[in-house]
Order: sequence, then structure tokens, then C-alpha cells
Amino acid sequence: MTPVEEQIAAIKRGTSEIIDESELADRLKESIKTGKPLRVKAGFDPTAPDLHLGHTVLLQKMKQFQELGHEVIFLIGDFTGMIGDPTGKSETRKNLSESEVQENAKTYLEQVYKILDKEKTTIEYNSKWMKELTSANMIELAGKYTVARMLERDDFDKRFKNNQPISIHELMYPLVQGYDSVALQSDIELGGTDQKFNLLVGRDLQRAYGYRPQMILTMPLLEGTDGVQKMSKSLDNYIGITDSPKDMFGKTLSISDELMWRYYELLSDLSLKDIKDLKNSVSSGELHPKVCKVRLAKELVARYHSPADADSAEAEFENVFKNKNLPDDIPTIPSWDGDPQWICKLLADAKLTKSTSEARRLIQQGAVSLDGEKVADVDLQLNSGQEYLIKVGKKRFLKILAEV
Amino acid sequence: MTPVEEQIAAIKRGTSEIIDESELADRLKESIKTGKPLRVKAGFDPTAPDLHLGHTVLLQKMKQFQELGHEVIFLIGDFTGMIGDPTGKSETRKNLSESEVQENAKTYLEQVYKILDKEKTTIEYNSKWMKELTSANMIELAGKYTVARMLERDDFDKRFKNNQPISIHELMYPLVQGYDSVALQSDIELGGTDQKFNLLVGRDLQRAYGYRPQMILTMPLLEGTDGVQKMSKSLDNYIGITDSPKDMFGKTLSISDELMWRYYELLSDLSLKDIKDLKNSVSSGELHPKVCKVRLAKELVARYHSPADADSAEAEFENVFKNKNLPDDIPTIPSWDGDPQWICKLLADAKLTKSTSEARRLIQQGAVSLDGEKVADVDLQLNSGQEYLIKVGKKRFLKILAEV
Repeated sequence: MTPVEEQIAAIKRGTSEIIDESELADRLKESIKTGKPLRVKAGFDPTAPDLHLGHTVLLQKMKQFQELGHEVIFLIGDFTGMIGDPTGKSETRKNLSESEVQENAKTYLEQVYKILDKEKTTIEYNSKWMKELTSANMIELAGKYTVARMLERDDFDKRFKNNQPISIHELMYPLVQGYDSVALQSDIELGGTDQKFNLLVGRDLQRAYGYRPQMILTMPLLEGTDGVQKMSKSLDNYIGITDSPKDMFGKTLSISDELMWRYYELLSDLSLKDIKDLKNSVSSGELHPKVCKVRLAKELVARYHSPADADSAEAEFENVFKNKNLPDDIPTIPSWDGDPQWICKLLADAKLTKSTSEARRLIQQGAVSLDGEKVADVDLQLNSGQEYLIKVGKKRFLKILAEV
Repeated sequence: MTPVEEQIAAIKRGTSEIIDESELADRLKESIKTGKPLRVKAGFDPTAPDLHLGHTVLLQKMKQFQELGHEVIFLIGDFTGMIGDPTGKSETRKNLSESEVQENAKTYLEQVYKILDKEKTTIEYNSKWMKELTSANMIELAGKYTVARMLERDDFDKRFKNNQPISIHELMYPLVQGYDSVALQSDIELGGTDQKFNLLVGRDLQRAYGYRPQMILTMPLLEGTDGVQKMSKSLDNYIGITDSPKDMFGKTLSISDELMWRYYELLSDLSLKDIKDLKNSVSSGELHPKVCKVRLAKELVARYHSPADADSAEAEFENVFKNKNLPDDIPTIPSWDGDPQWICKLLADAKLTKSTSEARRLIQQGAVSLDGEKVADVDLQLNSGQEYLIKVGKKRFLKILAEV
């Protein structure tokens, strides 16, 4: 097994907080001595799983634990997922059926195994023990925490102070999540910084049930491609792990140099030492930062697609954006006979925009050009029998070929 | 069946509140039309049951419902009784075993059947349905109420504002009690004014589970013999229903005239009309209030003991307190030879006081007299061969007879 100091260095990489570090050293020593790996828990909601790089920060940490020889438990919170929100008020807490949970879990794991070692990953569903609890057990569980302490959680605290309703069952969910740690006898639980409160509940509950309390380790929330806000679908600043090689490559190239180093620390498999070397070479002017960014982009594409895809993505990117040439696969439509046609209708018909009104909006935003010139008139009509190149945003093109 | 107006008059007797009255009239009409009695629920904790008249206020109301032909359900909250307080902080919420619950319920019912008609009383234990609830059902139940609404309950509100801990399971207990109404499909629930919040939770939960919400009826908390504070063991202002005939009679006679009318309304089987007639006779000077008080005392002794006991209690009371004579059965001890004896030791040995220190305290309080004179000296020695009459408090006597 890896020596304690090296393990600690690997575990600490990129973390926000470890509670607490001296305990971690002790348990790692104990683990080496007894030959018993640590039980590392991380919980996931079985809601529609479409992962982006933000989610993989935690998975990378789990992978590092696997590489250090510890037992990683991928816990699927199906019990709460199946109950959902009994008040019907929260849309994010859908009431999933057992088969939906199974389906989601499958999709989830397909993505997860691009990072984790399937052979070394323990999958658990918390319905296994939660279903066994009786109504009396649930009341006992509820007896382990006070209302005031639970309301200290940031989101509860805000809602309570703003007189926004908090349903009593919502206080139960952190207890259920914490009880998972009791059932699993986890040594350490991983989560995002936004999960710190819940992870600590697990630590408290293990103590309350007479077990050795788990340590907790939180990872930062990854910034999106804008470098400012948390990566999220709704902000459209995300890189999805099912994004096409081209998109994944392009989006990674679009991030700032500063953010690149953060992505390296949190997402790359490169050792901290190698990252430091790269950084020094950039600082001294030996290496252009773009080279490092391309390297990172290729690592990610190779991980989620394949090394070959990484090479093609790089080649096409160079072609389009660096050499300012057009990509190879521009959609092309033939010209037509008769009356001129409205540009917005052409774009919508060719599926470059979702609708004519989206096309209109993009023109108003100055995002559409015709033969290299910005289109200013939303009512622009294009003549028949003529050749055009329309560009929408940075990457979408439509070529209209004159009739031969 | 009794006409609606008459039923309402009987039901309203002595109540604090009915929610709501027009609903009650509608349901009574419906009940007469369909021939289906109302289901009347009242819940009781199976903790050490030693009833006093305060508890019987509710039982009298249940009896009135029985006399009107409705179905009275005596609900024993054994589920919560057996869980008790999982935090171990509340002494009143002991964790009872199943056999303790059975034992307590038996003792309870023996007392209760002095008021209720055994044949017409439905006994239920809430463990019947609560044990069947799964952990998921418990979370659904918790989803029916918000934290803020639950914290509106007076005692929670106070504790929360004073930063006194409230355990989350405590929020579950009113929900469990309310769920009993869902399981029982009760039409009306009875309770003390201090139970109003909980009764309303039952009403809300029935609605939330898609049933017709129960009405609620609250009874006032009976004042103790002091006429000021709520009757309670700890304040020693109570009349226990297992008190001896003599004590029950004496304590009832000691209440004020004003309180007597309240006891009549809440505890007597006399009709409101008859009570009004008595009151008028007292007002006009035809009847001495003491006569009414004796009547009430005899009614209570007859109910909890027997009519014969009521007669003896009256006779003895007249003998001792009205005619200022001594009671017939004064404990008597012979005098002794030799040294004088300490008065406190004599009292303790004769069991008139629990200990010499209690005797000493009573002397200090001026509650002990010797041959009609207050004893001032706690070290007083009584001589041998002499006759004495010692009086402790109002009713305890000890006679020492000189040797013949």
C-alpha cells in the first residue's frame, strides 16, 4: 500500500475541506497496519442522470481512492428517489418508479465507469436498509436530531427566515442520507461543498448509533466555461460528458488560461507534479498556454470518447478556428426557383435554428452573418439561383448552392 | 334518536369550543337520517393511570355521547407510549413495554368504566395501524405538514424561541396522533383545551388523505379544589377517583360555592335544568349552598364507590366537622412508664406523620395542636402516665390514654 504521506497528498488534491485531517492520517495508518481498506462512500440521486464535468470532480476523487486501494461505494439514493416529494411542490424531486430508478442507475453507471474502475466499485441502493426500517425506527431516527440544528442548514435557514414553507419530511431526508452511513459503516464520505451539512449529519448519526464517526471530504463546485458561475445545464456553461468530441474539444478550448489550471487539478489524471511542470513551462514562456489547453481537451475527449476521437476533434478544430477555414461537413441546400425567400425561414427549415422566431432573435443579437457580413435586417429576403454562405453563432453554417 | 337541538344542547354543555357548530348540526341531521351514529374519538396515553376528577371531565362528555347513541372510541396511544422519548430527555415519556401498556390499560379501563358504559365503548390501540406503516409511509405522513405550522403549537413555539432543543421526532408525534383520526375515520374528536392544536392536526390530516375532516370539541381544564389552578397531583389540589369516600367527600365539601357550580356542570349527571333549579333555590335563599355541596359530594362518592359509602361519608363528616366532635375511629395508644417522650417520635411511631422530620416541619408550620393548643416547641416532651389528644392538620388525631 502507498505510504500515508503520499496517500494524504493524493487525497488532499483539489479538496475544499477534510474533517478532520489528523483523523485521516490515523485511519490511513490503521488501514495500512490491518490491511483493511477504508470504506469510501459517495451518494447520488437517481434522477435523470446526464452528467457534466462538474459532476466528475467527485468521481475523480473516488477514482483516486480506488487507485490507493480503498473500497469505493457508489450509493444510489433510490429510497428517497422513489418517495420523491410527497407535497408535490418540488419538481426536482420527482416520484420515480422502481424501473425508472433501475433505468437511470444503468445510464448513470455507464457514464460513471468512464472514470471509475467497474471491478473495484461497490454499488449500493439505500432502499435495501431503508425499506427494512419500521415506523418506530423512523421515529427513533428523528429523535437523533433537533429541529434547530437541522434548520441551521443554509437552504432551510433561508427559507425558514423568509417564511417559505419547509415540509417536515424535508427534515427527514438528511437523516435518511445520514443513516446510510450508519448502515454502510463508512469511514469517509465524499461530497460537494454544498453537501457539507448532510455529510456531517452522517458523522453525527454514526456517533449517535454508537459507531465510529466517518470523516468527511468536500470537493469544490466546478466553475463553468464562463469561469465565474458554477457549471450547470441551466446556465449553459457546461461541458456534458456525452457532448460530441467536437463540442467537448471546442468548449474546453474556450475557457480562460486561469480556469484551465483549475480544470487540470480537478479533472485531469496528470499528476500534480506534471501539472506543476506544465505551469512552469508556460510561466517561463517555453510553452504557449494553448498547447496545454489542447492537451487537456484531448485528455477529456479521449476519456469520454476515444483517443482517435481526440485526434480528429483536434484536427477539425485547427481547421475551422485556427486556420479560419470552414469545417468539412457544412450542411448544404440547393437554391430554388421563383420568389426570394425569407432568411429566417431558410434557417429554420434547415434546422440551424429551432424556429423562425429564434432566427429572428439571433439576427437581432447580431449573431448571423451572410457571406461574412452581419445581417441587420430580420426581414431579409434571399434571391433564388444565387450562392450564399450563412453563419449562425460561431459554429453553425448553412451553404446555399446555386442551381447548376 | 334524540332530536338535533337536544343533542346539540347536551353536547355543548361545559365545552370550551366546537369546530365547528354548524357542521355539527349537519352531521347530527345526517346521522339521524341514516341511522348511523357519529364516531367519537378520544385519545389517552397509557402512562401510569391514576385518574382524578380533572380527567373525568372528558369522560363525562364521552358518556353524554354514548347516551345520545353515538359510538365512543377510547383510543389508547400505545404506539407512541412504547417508543417513548428516544432522546431519553423527557421523564414523562417513558419507554413502556407491551405488558406495561396492557397493565396500565387494564387499570385505566377499570376506572373509566365507572363512568363509561363498558358495553358501548370501543377500545382501540393505535399500534394496530401505526405498526403497519412503512418508513416510506412515515415520510409521506411527514410531508403533510410544514415545520413552521407545527412550531406554531404553543409549547414548541416557546421552546423554539427560548432556544430549548426540540427533537425532530417530537414533530412526528402530533402527526401520529392525527393519523389515528385518518385510520379511525372519526367524525369528531374530543380533548382538553390544551389538545386543540393536536385535534386540528387530525382534522387537517384527514383532509390531506382525502377524507371528510373531523370536527373537534374541547373541554376546559378543571380547576383544582383551590379554585384557581388546574387540578393536578403535583399541586395537591386534586380529588382522586380512588380517594377514600371520606377524603372524596371532605375535599368536595372544601371547595368554594362558585367552584361547586362549575363542578356540577362538568362532573355531575344532573341535567342542566335541574342544576339551574338548584342554583335558583340557593339564590332565593330557599336552599343553603352547603346542601348542594353535600349532594354533589355524595353523587361523586356514590359513582366511584357506592351509595352506601356516600351515606357513611356524609354521616362521619357531619359528626367530625359540623358538630365539631371527634371522629369515631381515632387511633389510640396507651401511655408508658418512665421518661418523657418526644412528641415527634410519638407521631411518627403512630404513623400520623411519615417521619420525625415531617412531624417537626408540621409543628413549625403550626399544624399540630396538643389538647386544643398549638404546639410551638419542636422538642416538646410528653410525660408518661398522662392523657393527651394530639391533632395534626385538620383530620388526623392521636389519643394517648393514661394507664389504668
